[in-house]
Parts: sequence; C-alpha cells; structure tokens
Amino acid sequence: MTDRPFTETRVVRWGDCDPAGIIYAPRVFDYAMEALEAWYRDVLDVPWMRLVGDMGMGSPMVRAEVDFLNALAADQQVVSEVRVDRVGRASVTYRINGHDGDGRHCFRVTIVACFIDRPTFASAPIPADIRERMVAYQTACGDQ
Amino acid sequence: MTDRPFTETRVVRWGDCDPAGIIYAPRVFDYAMEALEAWYRDVLDVPWMRLVGDMGMGSPMVRAEVDFLNALAADQQVVSEVRVDRVGRASVTYRINGHDGDGRHCFRVTIVACFIDRPTFASAPIPADIRERMVAYQTACGDQ
Amino acid sequence: MTDRPFTETRVVRWGDCDPAGIIYAPRVFDYAMEALEAWYRDVLDVPWMRLVGDMGMGSPMVRAEVDFLNALAADQQVVSEVRVDRVGRASVTYRINGHDGDGRHCFRVTIVACFIDRPTFASAPIPADIRERMVAYQTACGDQ
Amino acid sequence: MTDRPFTETRVVRWGDCDPAGIIYAPRVFDYAMEALEAWYRDVLDVPWMRLVGDMGMGSPMVRAEVDFLNALAADQQVVSEVRVDRVGRASVTYRINGHDGDGRHCFRVTIVACFIDRPTFASAPIPADIRERMVAYQTACGDQ
Repeated sequence: MTDRPFTETRVVRWGDCDPAGIIYAPRVFDYAMEALEAWYRDVLDVPWMRLVGDMGMGSPMVRAEVDFLNALAADQQVVSEVRVDRVGRASVTYRINGHDGDGRHCFRVTIVACFIDRPTFASAPIPADIRERMVAYQTACGDQ
Repeated sequence: MTDRPFTETRVVRWGDCDPAGIIYAPRVFDYAMEALEAWYRDVLDVPWMRLVGDMGMGSPMVRAEVDFLNALAADQQVVSEVRVDRVGRASVTYRINGHDGDGRHCFRVTIVACFIDRPTFASAPIPADIRERMVAYQTACGDQ
Repeated sequence: MTDRPFTETRVVRWGDCDPAGIIYAPRVFDYAMEALEAWYRDVLDVPWMRLVGDMGMGSPMVRAEVDFLNALAADQQVVSEVRVDRVGRASVTYRINGHDGDGRHCFRVTIVACFIDRPTFASAPIPADIRERMVAYQTACGDQ
Repeated sequence: MTDRPFTETRVVRWGDCDPAGIIYAPRVFDYAMEALEAWYRDVLDVPWMRLVGDMGMGSPMVRAEVDFLNALAADQQVVSEVRVDRVGRASVTYRINGHDGDGRHCFRVTIVACFIDRPTFASAPIPADIRERMVAYQTACGDQ
C-alpha cells in the first residue's frame, strides 16, 4: 500500500511557463488533474481508461476552484497531494494541494466530479467498490 | 469600437478532447484565458506582452472558479463572452461565459487577478488608464 | 467553395510562448495540426470525429518534419496554409506553411499520415470519396 | 554521475490522448522536449532558465523530425532516451528515442537547435563549457 495521503511529484516545465517567467495559470489545473489521474490509477486501481472503456462510465468535472497561493517557475519541484473531501452518492469532491520543493504551499484545487453512464451521460451512482476505496482512503487520511 | 459585451469565437479542437470524446476539463480554463487575453488586446488595448515587457507589470491569477455546465465536443463552436464583475484598487474580477453554437451555456469561469510590479512581485494599483477602460467597459455592458 | 489554397488564421497565444518570450517549439506542431483539422472539416467535409466515430477509421501520423524559419511571439497573427503533397493508396503527405501578419514565412511542417481501420489499426486504403477530394484539392492548388 | 545514456520516465496522460484513444501526435514532440529539458538540467547542469536568464542566451529549435513508430495510450510508461548526434560550432543535433514499458520503440525525434545571443537573436557559438559537456556525454554514450 502506498503512503497516505497520496502524492504525485513532478517538475515545472519550461513549456508550462509564460513570457512572465512563471507558470501559465491553467497549467496548475493540469497539474492537479494529473495528480488526480495518478490517484485513480494507483490508489483506486481504476485507470480512467478502464472507467470509460471497460466499465462504460465516466466522471466529468462539475466544478473546479483553484487558489494560486505562490507562483511556480520552471525547474521547481511540485508535490501534489490528493485528498477526498466528500463522497456522495453520485458525486465526489477532491482537494489537491501543491507544494514546491521548499514546502511552500503553491496551489489548492477543489474539484467536484459526478459519475455518469456512457453513452447516455445519465447520472449514475458511484460503483460500490470504488466508493468503498474512496471512503477507506478518506479515513486513512484522517479526513473523516 | 467593438460590440459590447466582447466575445471571442473558436472551435473545439480534436486535440483538446480526451478519450471520453469530450473536452478535457482543464482546456475550458484555457479557452477562458484565451478570451481574456483577446479582451486585453482588443478592448483594453493592452496586450499582455506590453503589460509585462514595456510596463514592467504583471497580472497573475489569484483564484479561478470553473463551472462545467454542458460538455463540449470536437468541432463545436464556442463563443466566450468576457464581463467585468468588480474592479478594485489592485485587483479585478472577470467572468467568462462560454456558449456553444446552439446557444447552450457550456461554462462559466470566474477569475480574480491582481496587479504587481515586476520583478519585485509587490502588489501595485491598477494603472489609472487601464482601470478607466475597465470601468467604462463594465458600464457599457450594463454591469455597473 | 472556400478559396484555394485553404488557410486557417489564428493569433499566437501568451500561454503558447515560453519564458524566452517566443513560441514554445512544440506549439508550432499544434498550430499545423489545427490547420489540418480545419482543412478536413471545411475542405474534405470529414471532421475527424466522423472519421473515427461514424466511419470506424483513423488517420494517425507516421512522420512529421518541422522547419522553424522565423520565431513567433505572442499577439502575432499566423496564417497557416494547407497543401497536399502526395496522395498514396493508404497514406497522404501534407505540407503546412505558416506566415505571420507581415508575410514572413515562419514555419513549414510536413506530415505523413496513414489510414487505418479501427479498432484493428490495420492499414486501410483511403476511402474513395475522400481520396477524390484530396486529389481535386491538390489540382485546384496547382500542386499536381 | 547519472547513468548513460540519460533517460526520462513518465506516464502517458489521459489529457494527452484524443478521442481516438491514443496520444495526440503533437504531444510526442512535447515528451521529447521534456526529456531534452531534463537532460540540460541534470546532465549539462544548465537549466534553460539559467541559459536564458543568467547567461543571456537561447537555444531555439531550427528543425525537428518525429517518427511515430508505435501508438501510445493513456497509462503507458514512456522512457525517453536522449542522445547527442552532432555538436557543431553554434548548433547541435539531438536524438530522443521513446520506448514504452514493454520496450517497444514508440517514437524517434531528431531536433536541431542553434545557439543565439539575447536579445539580438544573433547566432552565437556554443559556450565552451557546455560544448565540452555535450561532447563528453556523446563519448560516454559511445556515439562518437
């Protein structure tokens, strides 16, 4: 079992920064999604490709909030921590916190996603085994 | 003078969509920023390159909120409308609404940005002429 | 009928430029693909979504060559012209030339793509009606 | 000293794939650039930010060639190996080979970059210490 909370580490890329020399704001959302995707794969054991392909479901975003706390620049390390805020019947709220290599809190991203059947896009309950793992993770992180 | 409110039109790209066949969520934030950038250039007459290069300032994002109201897919037209919600002394709040070609409301993005001096990154008041144009635009849109 | 050769016009985005102040090189490839995608939609009348979804085919890239002739910077206009170099039985070669607003030649991209059946990924001949339109376009451009 | 040849490992992201379910072609160029950037930082000890910021130089791309040998899909591991093909006076040719987790050769990218002074963009010789490290790396890889 991997450590709790789960973190994803990466380096800020040159191409993710803009002519002002700092990260282009939308890339922060990309980094948070990248951490969430890794969490699905490594913690829930449900790669998005399987969720969409084999399980005939999807989990589109409903809402996202991004707080830009400290600017990131190229070559900085970013450690993104994934937490589960709330697990509903057919939706879930994640919180992704990004810190740089010196431990400065750089961003906080809150994402609300729902679950749907495909191809109807009708709302669907979170599959029981996925829901269980989400709650277990939440508990392991002391968030419940 | 261009029409009020200002809109930016584009088409959803194939490469902006994911294996689920709809737009990858962070790209919505990219589309909103693209509209905001065009608004700076065309309405305020202050391309970001000039703000950063010639004026020695910057306007980093402080917070962003994205509501995903209807999924977008490749080849759909997106019309993004830029509105100014609030003009402060050293910060401003924008609202970008995206509609598809059939007029469906697809996303609403709220962005709070501050103004800074470069390279100190110290908070700075919005330059008077830029602030005036922001308020004039807000008035022309009936938002004040 | 749209003009020949077909062109796609866009503006270089702030977020496509890097801390050196010019376009991040891979974005040039993105611009060329964007023009090619628009050409499929507007000239061939085959949006990629239809090619992949309804027709059960695909046209993955086999090889790409990019010549960076003049650097592009934010706010510059880019006019990308699509030409067809060679239409084979199951593959096609495109050439996309990008010029800025002053007519400077900024990039030349050559792309070789093949046609495949999905989901087998087996090589497939270009559908006859698509092939005809490709050749007609090539002729209309004086490239044959 | 890190191993020779230098490799950069990553996972193909969901957001880098398109509705056909495989990597969107321009993202392969992004992956190659990411590996090259890491090689500059870790092997040459010259992060691009220092090259551009402190040293007042730049190394824009002149030409790139990408061979797409096998399609990559989300969740696959990609190991990108950086090799130096040719070190000239003011230009250098890199070769980046990407293999998936099963060792399949997925892409080969050749990049020619030149060196310039900033802000004049005039051609400049590769700084002696950087050139030495490039040649030493080339030798260590058995490419010379």
